[in-house]
Amino acid sequence: MIVTVLGSGANGGVPQWDCCCPNCSRARENPELRRTRSSVAVSLDGGQHVLIDATPDLKFQLEGVGLTPKPEEAEHGRQSRIDTVLITHGHGDHTVGIAEFSTGKSFEIPVHGPPDLMRFLFGSDDQSSFFGDLGRLARDYVVPHDLREGERLDLLDGLRVTGFEIDHTDGMEDGSCFPSSTYGYELEADGRRFVYTPDLGLLTEELLERVEGSDLFILDATFWW
Amino acid sequence: MIVTVLGSGANGGVPQWDCCCPNCSRARENPELRRTRSSVAVSLDGGQHVLIDATPDLKFQLEGVGLTPKPEEAEHGRQSRIDTVLITHGHGDHTVGIAEFSTGKSFEIPVHGPPDLMRFLFGSDDQSSFFGDLGRLARDYVVPHDLREGERLDLLDGLRVTGFEIDHTDGMEDGSCFPSSTYGYELEADGRRFVYTPDLGLLTEELLERVEGSDLFILDATFWW
Ligand SMILES: [Zn+2]
Ligand SMILES: [Zn+2]
Ligand SMILES: [Zn+2]
Ligand SMILES: [Zn+2]
Repeated sequence: MIVTVLGSGANGGVPQWDCCCPNCSRARENPELRRTRSSVAVSLDGGQHVLIDATPDLKFQLEGVGLTPKPEEAEHGRQSRIDTVLITHGHGDHTVGIAEFSTGKSFEIPVHGPPDLMRFLFGSDDQSSFFGDLGRLARDYVVPHDLREGERLDLLDGLRVTGFEIDHTDGMEDGSCFPSSTYGYELEADGRRFVYTPDLGLLTEELLERVEGSDLFILDATFWW
Repeated sequence: MIVTVLGSGANGGVPQWDCCCPNCSRARENPELRRTRSSVAVSLDGGQHVLIDATPDLKFQLEGVGLTPKPEEAEHGRQSRIDTVLITHGHGDHTVGIAEFSTGKSFEIPVHGPPDLMRFLFGSDDQSSFFGDLGRLARDYVVPHDLREGERLDLLDGLRVTGFEIDHTDGMEDGSCFPSSTYGYELEADGRRFVYTPDLGLLTEELLERVEGSDLFILDATFWW
């Protein structure tokens, strides 16, 4: 399993657009100190990838790591190296990159996430929504799929993925989360196990048990809204 | 009037994430050939700016032209050099940058656009929406305002702005546009007049009359969805 960290920054990245603290000022001077928003791409052979979260920086991130079409494989000059997208939750820094998939060719890329997140992003029969209303985007370019907690996805050629609920987004009185619930993702291939929880409110016993014995655990506990 | 072009690319920018045509391939080799998505910033003195459209590249664009906080003016290290935002229409390449305004300090930046666009982006009492549901974003960080066609806004210290409807987004049977109607913007200051129509479906007689005698006219007629 090849895990490529596309970004590791919180909601505003570094520098933040409105900030001139020492960290942000140094990052303006020195591009090596800049950070784009949290996302990883997972592959088994470096060819096709599973993308976790679609950040505002998605296009720059894909270019930055060379996750771009291979001329020798592209049909009519177009290729998606993204096989599948998994989204953790509805906050803007994890989702607005979905709009990037609306360029020249419709790849019908599956986008998975908790059912309430899919409804928030793409709408339903009785509720319209931003990404669902961006013309052809959710009709041809991406295909939203509800992923139930614990349901297993078989991706690429031997990558098993499950989503599990974690504590991050605001809990509401009716038991729902706002703007959506949050999944962490567990990925397994070739006897290796990777747990990814980019936004985490609470490191529970249950999560610690899941992480126990994994080969890689990436978490972040910044909380801003 | 100082007009800074922040980006001049269509929906996918150059290179497009999934494209290896000669143009996109050359742009991968040579960063000078890259193009970010269409947006301009208008200022009278280079200090505070009116931003037209909020692209996925907003953060990179502001950094690229140095439209960043001035340490000597920033309070507690934070400053918004964006006084007001005008949005032309609801397509993702003109709107998703709104989520950038959700960082450290709430500046309550006014965001103006056609009433149906504001409803599409921020929702209403009976309809929820993506940006309206991003927690505090539309409560404290940006403040949506319906701008009626022809209504005059007085911004900065002597910039007069009006929005006027143009043909771009899909017309629906009921007379509405999907996902929203589209405004061009006309800006005047110090006897100079600037007309901006970044996405334009039809160069009508009415628009040609408006443009007549203006000092600057920026238009684009790429159409993709
Ligand atoms: Zn900072
Ligand atoms: Zn979050
Ligand atoms: Zn191309
Ligand atoms: Zn458009």
